[in-house]
Amino acid sequence: MTGPEIEKLIQLLARLPGLGPRSARRAALDLLKRRDALLRPLAEALNVAAEKIVACAICGNLDTVNPCAICADVRRDSATLCVVEEVADLWAIERSAAFRGRYHVLGGVLSALDGIGPEDLGIARLVERASAPEVREIILAMNATVEGQTTAHYVTDRLAGTKVQVTRLAHGLPVGGELDYLDDGTLTAALRARRAI
Amino acid sequence: MTGPEIEKLIQLLARLPGLGPRSARRAALDLLKRRDALLRPLAEALNVAAEKIVACAICGNLDTVNPCAICADVRRDSATLCVVEEVADLWAIERSAAFRGRYHVLGGVLSALDGIGPEDLGIARLVERASAPEVREIILAMNATVEGQTTAHYVTDRLAGTKVQVTRLAHGLPVGGELDYLDDGTLTAALRARRAI
Repeated sequence: MTGPEIEKLIQLLARLPGLGPRSARRAALDLLKRRDALLRPLAEALNVAAEKIVACAICGNLDTVNPCAICADVRRDSATLCVVEEVADLWAIERSAAFRGRYHVLGGVLSALDGIGPEDLGIARLVERASAPEVREIILAMNATVEGQTTAHYVTDRLAGTKVQVTRLAHGLPVGGELDYLDDGTLTAALRARRAI
Repeated sequence: MTGPEIEKLIQLLARLPGLGPRSARRAALDLLKRRDALLRPLAEALNVAAEKIVACAICGNLDTVNPCAICADVRRDSATLCVVEEVADLWAIERSAAFRGRYHVLGGVLSALDGIGPEDLGIARLVERASAPEVREIILAMNATVEGQTTAHYVTDRLAGTKVQVTRLAHGLPVGGELDYLDDGTLTAALRARRAI
């Protein structure tokens, strides 16, 4: 029906998270309709990304410089390391502007099923960073999923030999959340961790 | 937070239909994670598409050859022209394999609001094609929306001077559809167009 070039484009677009085969077809047609406004700039941006963006050798963040802008920023607090699963989580915390320390991106979670062990996540390197004299606190900011919390437990165990304080994000009612729509687990956690006003 | 190169990539991805700012960020990170498997091939496919894929001068279909494979195919029936709004609609009809004639892609619908008139859709060129001696039937396969049907009405009027028979797609119960979930308009159309068994 369509040439192999268009099919190839649709198949590649369909592999992006959030796009299925149907929306990939729509996206491909849209790209071909807006060649100069969208198709060529996107091709160029992808080429630039492929050439220039690298993973930071210190924290695992993605940037055009190595070490990344966060690791290179002398104004950031070296005493606190925030451990996250993915670069997306690092970005989410940066958007909140609530953290001025440094990061450590694991690049995934422990998973026996997917064959991902401690060595794949570079946890030895995290322990090494945590052992530096200036580091005083490690914040475990994994997702509140079974895999995320399992990984957090494992990291806590591995950090037991260092002198750092290990903390985790608070669990509770999301800001703007309604009790009636909250799951039991979150409600239980919010009640247990209640604080004096 | 992130470099301008990543931001640029996210912004361009967010302009694809079906991807919002959030899913564009996920897609960008996914691309950067799968450089050789996805990022580079996609950049290459986009470059190929930008260079090679052109609109067919006869029917408006997208292909790497001009005239397109359908217009160049001598086995297709030149007596029947199917008029569609967009290339996506042409592809949908081709997938059904129920039509062996030729196509005419308008590239949109009449819209006073968006300032799209008959000259933008090249309706004069359609009338010209319909006037060719071999053409006997024009199938109007516009969407069953107000805009699509308005355009179909206009095209019908413009074709009144030619000797071709103008038809439109049947309206009725979709195959696999349930009466209880059908809108009143479709149900009315299906009842009116009932056929003897």
